[in-house]
Amino acid sequence: MPSVAIAGAGLVGALNACFFAQKGWDVSVYEFRKDIRTMKHVQGRSINLALSQRGKSALEAVGLREYIVNQGVPLYARLVHNKDGKTFSRQPYGKPGEHIVSINRRHLNEVMITQAEKSPNVKFFFEHKVKNVDYEKKQLVVQCTSQPSRIPTFGTRAASQDHGEIHVEADLILACDGAYSAVRRSLMTIPRFDFSQDYIEHGYVELNIMANNNKFAFEENVFHLWPRGHFTLIALANRDKTFTVTIFAPFSEFEKHMSTTEDVLLFFEENFPDAFRLLGKEHITETFNRVKPQPLVSIKCSPHSFFDNLVLMGDAAHAMVPFYGQGMNCGFEDCLVFSETLEEHDNDIASAVRAYSEKRVNDAHTINDLAMYNYEELKDLVNRNSYKLRKKFDTIMNMIFPKSWIPLYSMVTFTRIPYSEVIERRKRQDKILSTLLTTASAVAFIGAFMGMFSNRAKFGF
Amino acid sequence: MPSVAIAGAGLVGALNACFFAQKGWDVSVYEFRKDIRTMKHVQGRSINLALSQRGKSALEAVGLREYIVNQGVPLYARLVHNKDGKTFSRQPYGKPGEHIVSINRRHLNEVMITQAEKSPNVKFFFEHKVKNVDYEKKQLVVQCTSQPSRIPTFGTRAASQDHGEIHVEADLILACDGAYSAVRRSLMTIPRFDFSQDYIEHGYVELNIMANNNKFAFEENVFHLWPRGHFTLIALANRDKTFTVTIFAPFSEFEKHMSTTEDVLLFFEENFPDAFRLLGKEHITETFNRVKPQPLVSIKCSPHSFFDNLVLMGDAAHAMVPFYGQGMNCGFEDCLVFSETLEEHDNDIASAVRAYSEKRVNDAHTINDLAMYNYEELKDLVNRNSYKLRKKFDTIMNMIFPKSWIPLYSMVTFTRIPYSEVIERRKRQDKILSTLLTTASAVAFIGAFMGMFSNRAKFGF
Repeated sequence: MPSVAIAGAGLVGALNACFFAQKGWDVSVYEFRKDIRTMKHVQGRSINLALSQRGKSALEAVGLREYIVNQGVPLYARLVHNKDGKTFSRQPYGKPGEHIVSINRRHLNEVMITQAEKSPNVKFFFEHKVKNVDYEKKQLVVQCTSQPSRIPTFGTRAASQDHGEIHVEADLILACDGAYSAVRRSLMTIPRFDFSQDYIEHGYVELNIMANNNKFAFEENVFHLWPRGHFTLIALANRDKTFTVTIFAPFSEFEKHMSTTEDVLLFFEENFPDAFRLLGKEHITETFNRVKPQPLVSIKCSPHSFFDNLVLMGDAAHAMVPFYGQGMNCGFEDCLVFSETLEEHDNDIASAVRAYSEKRVNDAHTINDLAMYNYEELKDLVNRNSYKLRKKFDTIMNMIFPKSWIPLYSMVTFTRIPYSEVIERRKRQDKILSTLLTTASAVAFIGAFMGMFSNRAKFGF
Repeated sequence: MPSVAIAGAGLVGALNACFFAQKGWDVSVYEFRKDIRTMKHVQGRSINLALSQRGKSALEAVGLREYIVNQGVPLYARLVHNKDGKTFSRQPYGKPGEHIVSINRRHLNEVMITQAEKSPNVKFFFEHKVKNVDYEKKQLVVQCTSQPSRIPTFGTRAASQDHGEIHVEADLILACDGAYSAVRRSLMTIPRFDFSQDYIEHGYVELNIMANNNKFAFEENVFHLWPRGHFTLIALANRDKTFTVTIFAPFSEFEKHMSTTEDVLLFFEENFPDAFRLLGKEHITETFNRVKPQPLVSIKCSPHSFFDNLVLMGDAAHAMVPFYGQGMNCGFEDCLVFSETLEEHDNDIASAVRAYSEKRVNDAHTINDLAMYNYEELKDLVNRNSYKLRKKFDTIMNMIFPKSWIPLYSMVTFTRIPYSEVIERRKRQDKILSTLLTTASAVAFIGAFMGMFSNRAKFGF
């Protein structure tokens, strides 16, 4: 069987391990952290994720869908909280029943590692930091941070050891080592490798609302949203009846209005009165004293594949701002698309790797742009009438043409239509809508014009 | 005196060494190549450069302007070669006398190194590869490739040596290590560091036209240009009466029409008949057998400064496509602007470093974009009537308003107006021009309308 070396045992790395475990390949996964299943606290990104169709399809393919979905909390709508702390507006995500699932990141990751490890052909090497790619030799350079290393015990071949660095040889290398991917960084000088990383002006801070007598403090099956122009608060329910609450604001806003305890309490009380009461003064104070706002980055690159045997996947290929809830879903779909592509190419690694990149780069760029666009939407748009009107129009059109007119959000969230096709379809919808509007206003204009003559007096001339 | 460690002894690194030599600082320069003054062949970028006002001003400040300019060939105009190989059109760069100077890269680099080395406070360490920045300690990590290293002999302090790596400490670190800057690469994971590298679809191959009986084969004081839509040939004169000729074409075009000897000769003969005769079949064949088309990258990043003591300059901060001839000029102006900023801040490194980045990032982004825009222009635009008309209009306006209406190319090339202000001024010009055109067409329309009634017969009704 061919061998695959995976950099990173995060969500995408662990899911890839499940995929290749199933295929019977020799799988070795190198992860610089300790085994998260043995850790008390896991540092890093948000603990909250929203699983949608693409992610579910990928989990389905490795037999984990049902189990994972049952561990989550379904969310059917956005619930917008107004500034008075009392009134709300509700926006369903899709048709009745359509929903996303709020999932705990750590739990999901643990389940996938355990699932992959059930196969005797899969080995995880924790505390093994992937340092770079030796691209003369097409090898992964790994450093063990807890001597002695157990490589090679299985699967891929340790080609050499030097200065504590181990050169790992494999038929296929999957770089799933996240937004700050060491593998990708070592490819930066390869000619014609396009790359960009853009930080947005917003940062975020995560807080928690505790369960209230073992009950959810807010309605649990909605995505709570406090859009306030250039800053926004969100809250997602967890299975343990807590809520993970995140505030997004420009760094300048954090500095200006949230740098002292007094200021931050006042800021929350004024802008999010209902959330403020449930978060509590003490928790807000403690959190803002402990953590700094974290930055948000958008990463694009092209190609996603190199040397006929290396693929970048997940955040390593396309870290995105979190405002479309597609970061993990896109990463999971990467695994599924690559698995499908390998099958289409009869497991010919070189041709599958090339074909994957050709297909996937465009899709990744598209969802990256959409996430950035939704950044605007979450900030403010959801409260605008034009946005609500369009949403209503899309819903009606979808009722008339259920297959051909699917609202943008639904195409992204509830289908596996390739992201790049999603945007093409949206453009066609926009064109039709604009034709309709032009026609309608022409009709209205002619109507008004005719009316002018029949009702001159009305207009005063 | 404070110490400065410079990564790279290329054009920008060597010029910085001259600036700080003059200031009396302790200067050490780390360059991975051997001393180019002792080398037979220097691998790397184009040997041809066009020096314009910004570069000249920087050289002036270190007392090298006159010497360097006298070693170059002045160019007063573009000479466009038509496809028949016989007819031309001439486009002066500016007012009579205004010119750029064709300079040999290697010679320029050597002169600057020699000039800097005259100061006893400057030391060049060749065959010392800058590997990265240790940003906990704010030190440059350098590896000597020819043992034993002579560090520390002067100036900056070698903080420690380990595994052949030397940690260099200095009050100021200037990263001038080029488009593939190792320093910049080691800063990639710093939060809120925006970065992009974009390769254009064009690559280039460099050729030479020999002197003809010790005479220039073409007119020497013009920039020769063969614009052919999506590919272009250029030629610049050298002091030794040769011409450096560069073909720019999409990689796909190189593959399609220049991959066999037969094809490439046919391609040159058809598209550039006059250049073809002078280049000669043998030289074209030999060159295309020996070298592959080289890629062209555009790099932007922000900020340009880090930790209060490190600055990225030249291509390390803003590699650009070569179509405005401003890569070196912008890099040289970096040195001048930084020197001026230090003086404005009474040599307070931390505040100068911050102020420099705040000012310079915008200018660098602007010239980067302009170079990309000129990529279009060089390809085709120069032959279009709209372009020629605008050029004429700008020339006339400049005669009427010599200070306030300077053509775009002239502002970039013959002034030190900050690039970002250049583009603001151009926008104002465009606005005025569009108002004039609207007014003119309104007048023309009214004129025609009035005429319609007085000359109905003419229009046939």
